[in-house]
Amino acid sequence: MAGGVGSRFWPRSREKTPKHLLQITGKGTMLQHTIDRLDSLVHPRDVFIVTNKVQKGQMLKQMSGFPEGNIIVEPVGRNTAPCIGLAALHVRKLDPQAVMVVLPADHMIKDLQEFRRVLAVAGETAAESGSLLTIGIKPTRPETGYGYIQTFNEEGEHNPFFAKGVLKVKTFAEKPNLQTAEHFLASGDFLWNSGMFVWRADAVLDQISRCLPDLHAELMKIDRAIGTPQYQSTLDQVYGMIRGISIDYGVMEKADSVFVIPGSFGWSDVGSWDEVYSVSGKDAGGNSINGKVIQIDTKNSFIYSPSKVVAAIGVDDLIVVNTDDALLICRKGRSQEVKEIVDYLRRKQMNEFL
Amino acid sequence: MAGGVGSRFWPRSREKTPKHLLQITGKGTMLQHTIDRLDSLVHPRDVFIVTNKVQKGQMLKQMSGFPEGNIIVEPVGRNTAPCIGLAALHVRKLDPQAVMVVLPADHMIKDLQEFRRVLAVAGETAAESGSLLTIGIKPTRPETGYGYIQTFNEEGEHNPFFAKGVLKVKTFAEKPNLQTAEHFLASGDFLWNSGMFVWRADAVLDQISRCLPDLHAELMKIDRAIGTPQYQSTLDQVYGMIRGISIDYGVMEKADSVFVIPGSFGWSDVGSWDEVYSVSGKDAGGNSINGKVIQIDTKNSFIYSPSKVVAAIGVDDLIVVNTDDALLICRKGRSQEVKEIVDYLRRKQMNEFL
Repeated sequence: MAGGVGSRFWPRSREKTPKHLLQITGKGTMLQHTIDRLDSLVHPRDVFIVTNKVQKGQMLKQMSGFPEGNIIVEPVGRNTAPCIGLAALHVRKLDPQAVMVVLPADHMIKDLQEFRRVLAVAGETAAESGSLLTIGIKPTRPETGYGYIQTFNEEGEHNPFFAKGVLKVKTFAEKPNLQTAEHFLASGDFLWNSGMFVWRADAVLDQISRCLPDLHAELMKIDRAIGTPQYQSTLDQVYGMIRGISIDYGVMEKADSVFVIPGSFGWSDVGSWDEVYSVSGKDAGGNSINGKVIQIDTKNSFIYSPSKVVAAIGVDDLIVVNTDDALLICRKGRSQEVKEIVDYLRRKQMNEFL
Repeated sequence: MAGGVGSRFWPRSREKTPKHLLQITGKGTMLQHTIDRLDSLVHPRDVFIVTNKVQKGQMLKQMSGFPEGNIIVEPVGRNTAPCIGLAALHVRKLDPQAVMVVLPADHMIKDLQEFRRVLAVAGETAAESGSLLTIGIKPTRPETGYGYIQTFNEEGEHNPFFAKGVLKVKTFAEKPNLQTAEHFLASGDFLWNSGMFVWRADAVLDQISRCLPDLHAELMKIDRAIGTPQYQSTLDQVYGMIRGISIDYGVMEKADSVFVIPGSFGWSDVGSWDEVYSVSGKDAGGNSINGKVIQIDTKNSFIYSPSKVVAAIGVDDLIVVNTDDALLICRKGRSQEVKEIVDYLRRKQMNEFL
């Protein structure tokens, strides 16, 4: 899933160069990292990207060799349920028994081996059972920026996969306040909702049919048009009609047989510049510097300026992102508010900066 | 006098675009303001600029109509005494009785009427007496960044100009520490040394002859070469030999008959970005903003970014100067340290940023 913009990465993320097409940590884009991570688990020809028209060109330019036919283009963004449904149609056409791994294209994962182990278990379980599986992250702090998944920890006849480390989902919880997050962390049976899913394509379409029958009916119109000259017009028409809804809210919370596999593989959704700072290497002064930066007495700051020289004097706890046409200076801890800057630019139709 | 760079205005000030060739406050460059301020006192054809080779081209480009022959080019900078001596030679050639007003090209003055009144009194006094006059600024705070002039406040036979508001100079004092500055301010007989002088050209050359005989001897070589084909080679040779010394240290502290006229005309040497912030207009949040700046909860900051959009979130007490190729982010109160950045760039031979 590589369709969003990642507004909170402004001024680096733009409509044509969204977060997942940027090098945020290390070499390679986040999308490329997401694909590379599947190496040995998924054959390259079986990797599909769901994106939009604006991003497709840039994507093909960055990823020489990626088959253009494996890029599924949504006419407009309608949140994750239609996106995943559309992808499931394409996957099922190739193989009616296919297991799908659904991954956001803009997450960071440090421990690849553990990640692959978890995906392999999830894949086996999905293949043999028709269950919906999601990957839950063992929480390390009372984070208020993520949704949570509560699990049944005990074994029982309702969970035939317990021995493999698979837990049955009790409920999905929205982003909590700090007190609730602390309670979740202490209880031991809550996991972070990573937004990564594993299931058979036919299984998720069955559950969409049960939980979102209107969406399913529309998807069936697309399904019939796949491979015909009417595909594009049908897709455009259907996407014009359907309402946006997330797979979590629309399907996962209501579906039968939903399981989660807890993982600890250094996951981060890298959802803000603060998060990038927190996962970055730092110098002795606590600074994460990228570019020609001359500093005097500068501490605990994130400075990114690949092409322009920056002089920082007496700077503390600041996030500085300096691109060719725009500059962000943000107090550390407040980078969620970058979204408001992008909203402002949009309201004022300052399109050259979007 | 328009020969320095004004390193502390980096990244705006560069070797080719020094402080006095920039618009720092209001419209027009500081040099242009300095010249415009003399309107009605000095005929435009009698205005001379002393500068260097690198700046001359840019200067002529900015000031259409300024006579190229009135730009005196020093081969190298040798501080103010040689600069003023050289200018005095040229002025004396035009008119042996001429009174010179010597002004740094990078100061700010708010009350033009009072400034002109003070200059007129100084001019008259200099013309009739052959005295050296300097303009002293009535201090408004215990500033440690300026030199001070101590005066004799009482009338007496040693001061025939007392009735005109002219005071005899007792001594020149270097930049004081805060305690001394507070003492100076409380005493009532100290003025800020503005570096502006008024005297007859022949009088200052006489005093250079008395106080700096070596310099005077060298200047006489130039004097004999003015108007001859040997002028440039003589100038180059003399400037290669002489040592740099300031007019204050070299002449004013030792000369006979030195007077000061106290003025209160909203003077500032605008010596740093902090000073620019302090003389600038501010919005309700105490910000001085120049450029496309989108702010959330930003206070008491100076932000200059004429061509690039800046988003500031939760920024306090910061100086931000964003030019096409370089960015300064400086804690307020520390802009004197900008000089260290320029020193660093020079040491590292990062000449494109100098």
